[in-house]
Amino acid sequence: MITSQLEIVKSLLQTVWSDGNIDDSDKFIASHYTIRHDPGDPWEGKTVDLAGYKERCRLSRAPFPDQKFEIVDITRGDEFVVVTWNWSGTHRGDLPGIPATGKVIRMSGATVYYFSGDRITGHWQIADRLSVYRQIRDVRA
Amino acid sequence: MITSQLEIVKSLLQTVWSDGNIDDSDKFIASHYTIRHDPGDPWEGKTVDLAGYKERCRLSRAPFPDQKFEIVDITRGDEFVVVTWNWSGTHRGDLPGIPATGKVIRMSGATVYYFSGDRITGHWQIADRLSVYRQIRDVRA
Repeated sequence: MITSQLEIVKSLLQTVWSDGNIDDSDKFIASHYTIRHDPGDPWEGKTVDLAGYKERCRLSRAPFPDQKFEIVDITRGDEFVVVTWNWSGTHRGDLPGIPATGKVIRMSGATVYYFSGDRITGHWQIADRLSVYRQIRDVRA
Repeated sequence: MITSQLEIVKSLLQTVWSDGNIDDSDKFIASHYTIRHDPGDPWEGKTVDLAGYKERCRLSRAPFPDQKFEIVDITRGDEFVVVTWNWSGTHRGDLPGIPATGKVIRMSGATVYYFSGDRITGHWQIADRLSVYRQIRDVRA
């Protein structure tokens, strides 16, 4: 299990979130998934089913369709995996109140993925949203 | 070493950062300490010696003298420890351009501490600074 939980997180970030193969979420995500902590994310505190997870992924990826996650460090604890990451994506779709800027935006963050066996049941996440707003605001100013 | 690196991080957060016993940094921090990644932190990218680490700690704690870190999850990798945390503190001292508000501010974050043996040589950190600015701005508005 030690290797496989790490591999599941690596595959989720690559296949689903970076490559956009959203239906592959079936391989990694549990039937109920809780966004335990994710300040600034509209789903924070909610529990979604697999269809809801995919919808969240679709809506999150839409403004940045070429987005890529690059892992900085990754390790596991007792039924969780922690990963730190750098993210970048071209702002090609509108955000709420912010039309597409066409600019490449960079963000970093850290995520704890909680497991039950070989499926992820939720996450606790911090993303550097302040830097994102500053990058987008610079373009609009 | 497995237990001790975890214990070192727990003690650093409790003794130095929460309780303000800054000189105890000697027990945990290496002679050179690099702030590898910490967006929004004025020391980001810098390497400091032990005196510089203590000075950073003093300046960082001054606006929030009663600050406390509460650990959410903690685990270790190969020569690093990752910790996720909730932080709170009363805003009793001025921040650059922002006079003290007296308000209790809450923030969460994640930190990777890199080790050489039993000393910490640096960190990679994300803190939810956007929430902090929103909390402080609400008071000033």
